[in-house]
Amino acid sequence: METNTTTLAEYLFARLHQLGVDSIFGLPGDYNLQLLDYVAPSRLHWIGNCNELNAGYAADGYSRIKGIGALVTTFGVGELSAVNAIAGAYAERAPVVHIVGTPVRQSQESRSLIHHTFNDGEYERFDRMQEHITVTQAILTDHRSAPAEIDRVLQQCLLHSRPVRIAIPLDMVSLHVPKMLLQTKISIPLATRQPKIEEKALKVVLDRIYSAKKPIILVDGEIRSARIMDEVDHIVKSTEWPTFTSGYGKGLIDESLPNVYGVFTPQLKEFVDSSDLVLCFGPHFSNTNTFIFQTVPKEEITIAINATSVQIGSEILRDLPANDFLPQLIGHLEMDKITKYDPKLVHPKSVEPPAVSDSDLVTQAGGFWHRISSFFREGDIVLAETGTAAYGANEFRLPPKTRLFKAVTWLSIGYMLPATLGASLAQHDLIGRSDYHNLLEARTILFIGDGSFQLTAQELATIIHRKLDVIIFLINNDGYTIERCIHGRDAAYNDITPWRYLKGPEFFGAPSEGQYAAHTWEVRTWGDLDKALTDERMLNGKGVRMVEVFMEKLDAPSPLDRVLDLQILREKAETIPA
Amino acid sequence: METNTTTLAEYLFARLHQLGVDSIFGLPGDYNLQLLDYVAPSRLHWIGNCNELNAGYAADGYSRIKGIGALVTTFGVGELSAVNAIAGAYAERAPVVHIVGTPVRQSQESRSLIHHTFNDGEYERFDRMQEHITVTQAILTDHRSAPAEIDRVLQQCLLHSRPVRIAIPLDMVSLHVPKMLLQTKISIPLATRQPKIEEKALKVVLDRIYSAKKPIILVDGEIRSARIMDEVDHIVKSTEWPTFTSGYGKGLIDESLPNVYGVFTPQLKEFVDSSDLVLCFGPHFSNTNTFIFQTVPKEEITIAINATSVQIGSEILRDLPANDFLPQLIGHLEMDKITKYDPKLVHPKSVEPPAVSDSDLVTQAGGFWHRISSFFREGDIVLAETGTAAYGANEFRLPPKTRLFKAVTWLSIGYMLPATLGASLAQHDLIGRSDYHNLLEARTILFIGDGSFQLTAQELATIIHRKLDVIIFLINNDGYTIERCIHGRDAAYNDITPWRYLKGPEFFGAPSEGQYAAHTWEVRTWGDLDKALTDERMLNGKGVRMVEVFMEKLDAPSPLDRVLDLQILREKAETIPA
Repeated sequence: METNTTTLAEYLFARLHQLGVDSIFGLPGDYNLQLLDYVAPSRLHWIGNCNELNAGYAADGYSRIKGIGALVTTFGVGELSAVNAIAGAYAERAPVVHIVGTPVRQSQESRSLIHHTFNDGEYERFDRMQEHITVTQAILTDHRSAPAEIDRVLQQCLLHSRPVRIAIPLDMVSLHVPKMLLQTKISIPLATRQPKIEEKALKVVLDRIYSAKKPIILVDGEIRSARIMDEVDHIVKSTEWPTFTSGYGKGLIDESLPNVYGVFTPQLKEFVDSSDLVLCFGPHFSNTNTFIFQTVPKEEITIAINATSVQIGSEILRDLPANDFLPQLIGHLEMDKITKYDPKLVHPKSVEPPAVSDSDLVTQAGGFWHRISSFFREGDIVLAETGTAAYGANEFRLPPKTRLFKAVTWLSIGYMLPATLGASLAQHDLIGRSDYHNLLEARTILFIGDGSFQLTAQELATIIHRKLDVIIFLINNDGYTIERCIHGRDAAYNDITPWRYLKGPEFFGAPSEGQYAAHTWEVRTWGDLDKALTDERMLNGKGVRMVEVFMEKLDAPSPLDRVLDLQILREKAETIPA
Repeated sequence: METNTTTLAEYLFARLHQLGVDSIFGLPGDYNLQLLDYVAPSRLHWIGNCNELNAGYAADGYSRIKGIGALVTTFGVGELSAVNAIAGAYAERAPVVHIVGTPVRQSQESRSLIHHTFNDGEYERFDRMQEHITVTQAILTDHRSAPAEIDRVLQQCLLHSRPVRIAIPLDMVSLHVPKMLLQTKISIPLATRQPKIEEKALKVVLDRIYSAKKPIILVDGEIRSARIMDEVDHIVKSTEWPTFTSGYGKGLIDESLPNVYGVFTPQLKEFVDSSDLVLCFGPHFSNTNTFIFQTVPKEEITIAINATSVQIGSEILRDLPANDFLPQLIGHLEMDKITKYDPKLVHPKSVEPPAVSDSDLVTQAGGFWHRISSFFREGDIVLAETGTAAYGANEFRLPPKTRLFKAVTWLSIGYMLPATLGASLAQHDLIGRSDYHNLLEARTILFIGDGSFQLTAQELATIIHRKLDVIIFLINNDGYTIERCIHGRDAAYNDITPWRYLKGPEFFGAPSEGQYAAHTWEVRTWGDLDKALTDERMLNGKGVRMVEVFMEKLDAPSPLDRVLDLQILREKAETIPA
């Protein structure tokens, strides 16, 4: 019968699909199997991950490209394995929907002693734990309010660009609920005019913009979650003011523009301090995103456009959502009143990497991160895992329409490989919707250290199985080099077990022949690297390609190299514990 | 200078070493590096794991053999990855000490926006989350109380046989604290006599024992955590009463004894119900440990010896710690007053497995779990992962002095491989202390499904690297067979990616030659199995050996086979969601 009702599971999945979820991550478990029956019929691709942490990371990666991501886990054992990923999504504002299949209400209400509990009849522990790492939660217990509850948490997920959790008892999955609400799509609520605040903000910001003689723009990573990337792009292009990004902001604007000078490093502090206006978009001033607070611009010259407020010096004008305020600002901006300011900075594109010869070993000093940039193409998603790769990524020269993931604040090693799966699937799904820069194919390129790779290595199997166009540069520097730089450069605890990394694709099930056969390269010299990068299978191949790049174990990019020098000085000055 | 002080880190590690920790698990991280400097000097072996979940599982496995286990993680990103393992240790009573290195107090107090936080100055979220899964916690902030705090939580860990958490700010690691307390070892506090309760309990229990005509003994898994394995062994041997175990209790008593009849399955319910006394030790009546409550003995005939109470029928006499009460009971027990009871049950040892021929495919019905038992030796630790392996393990015939790990209540797939690492290291450490059944070598044998293996596969690298004598039987049945039995037997969400499992040892760095070269076997028929089990490299080899056993994807042991039959019946009766 055609009715005006649907099942609760279908309602949830229809909502996710409306919001842009095409692929959903997770693992089956006793308390979510019936829920999973509804995934494929709801036109969602089920991506079975190898474990729940990886599923969480993948959903996070997906959400940063697609604007929303989702995973399904099972009560207790499943959801707890994902908490680190959910916490990371909270810290770095990734809108992830965590759906947890829970035991039937009869078990819960009767405090039955069942598996995946502590055998003590207490069912709410995991709810309590997850509250600390999600913006809001829905624990569904009544079909009458369930659709509205789902809508509420999904809207909060979008609004805050942070994770939410929905717990569904197994016996509610197939309950009937009205379809009607589905006719209205969920969206971020519109801002209501706050005339006084808004007028003040516009006036002060415009005055400062017009009076600035030496203005600069600083683009940080929260422009993604505040959903103001287009507006910032417009301002950068139209003002032509000198523009920098933070590490987190890198890849969110087109850095091939002549007025975009790459990452704001401490070397540039003096120049930035000498300006009279820093227009800062989406600031996220953690120690690791600011070279330990060295690149936080001086408050007195800064106007910060935050997700929901404008900060002028020390004054915060709240309740001005950036995606509402910026269009107004742009509307009012009279371009003939602004300064042209060209401080004659050297553009990163015009810098040549150091000369090397083919037989030289690949090193940081030889400009690995800079040189590899010639390999990047429009449409690539590039990921650089926490560690030397993330610092090295500051040296990347990214073409237009690329995106970069790199370590920001959560810095959970192991994140980037499953995030590569998620980002690559998002790219694939966007191409499927003809919504990816008019491109019909695109690549996802991961740079990851050997230590980090080991934490979540098995997710390579999912990447292979899904036939995704993923290229992995694994930096084999024999352990946790970033930790060696900080402390214990020769300590055994910074060692890892030695793997035969290039056997990975074979072990994880890559085809041995055909167009998705996995290809691997071992790189020790610049000549090796050149050969790998110009190999036809690399340039025009399909599926997973993997390059193992060997580097010395203490070869680290700036500023890790200086951190290492400080450690050595400290060791000379101190007695080491016996 | 020789002083009467030591550093806080040395104090903690000295305490752990006193309690029997020889090996400690974990990963380095920015907030624990300085702490790790003290591990090796404290005579502890640092076992660097591939990720924190695995470290937690390994510490759990270690603790179940050695009586205590420990891991070190870093604030936020590290500790959160371990929570599922810590929760499992809580559910199944494994005494695990989780040590977390946290940021320096200055960062915490000033609410500095540093990495591994949510960039909001809130440092206590993770403390709050961990409270739900640990018995008690110490958050060290003052060196004067720190040693006593450490002692308090370690004692609680032992007392409850459940996990605890100790958070140490990086800047407290090297603070000086008095050594004096170290002279008194930490132990479980002695019971104080509760004369009235005790007399009543002894009288009633002895009366019931003396008057029983058809008594039986049921040994469950909490005799390990209640630390009454020796007492139960004594009672089983001296009464000669018919004895069964739960799945959780299997391997905790010598099942080669003539009066020990293996696992209490629903088939035996009628027999057990017809007895007039069930002496039940260490009960843990979760659904999964009781065939969905079918094998919970009738309350009116049951005397349950719990960790801290004696339950007679429905009456609970509390404050009688079992490891104090049982020695008293044994002291009072007059053997000439008890019934000899031999109900002429068939002993599992006298049952022959079904006849098969060498060319037949290996199947459950062919008696895989039974037949493989001939491979076991005294001193082996055998582990059977959640899924078909755990149910199949009920069929094992275990020699004396073996131990079995199998799914109980937490049932987190992925647990068993890292637990194998932990158990094997505990075995190795006990042999090193000449405290392992007078054996100079022993093996650890894992049975694991392909689905479960994928969750934590990388920990095989650590097993290989540590040259542990581990034999792995990987059941390749093409996905999550246990879930297929429950629901969705043909559903894609119960599929996994196909790996080349036997390439694992090579990928994870096993030597290609020498005495620790990894050897692998592929088994499809009984003849293949026989060849593998009688191979000299299997029988007398060293290091990791791995056998891939192929089975049909719906070939499951009892009672999963019946669960599958029910699903098929249900499908015939119901409409499947479109």
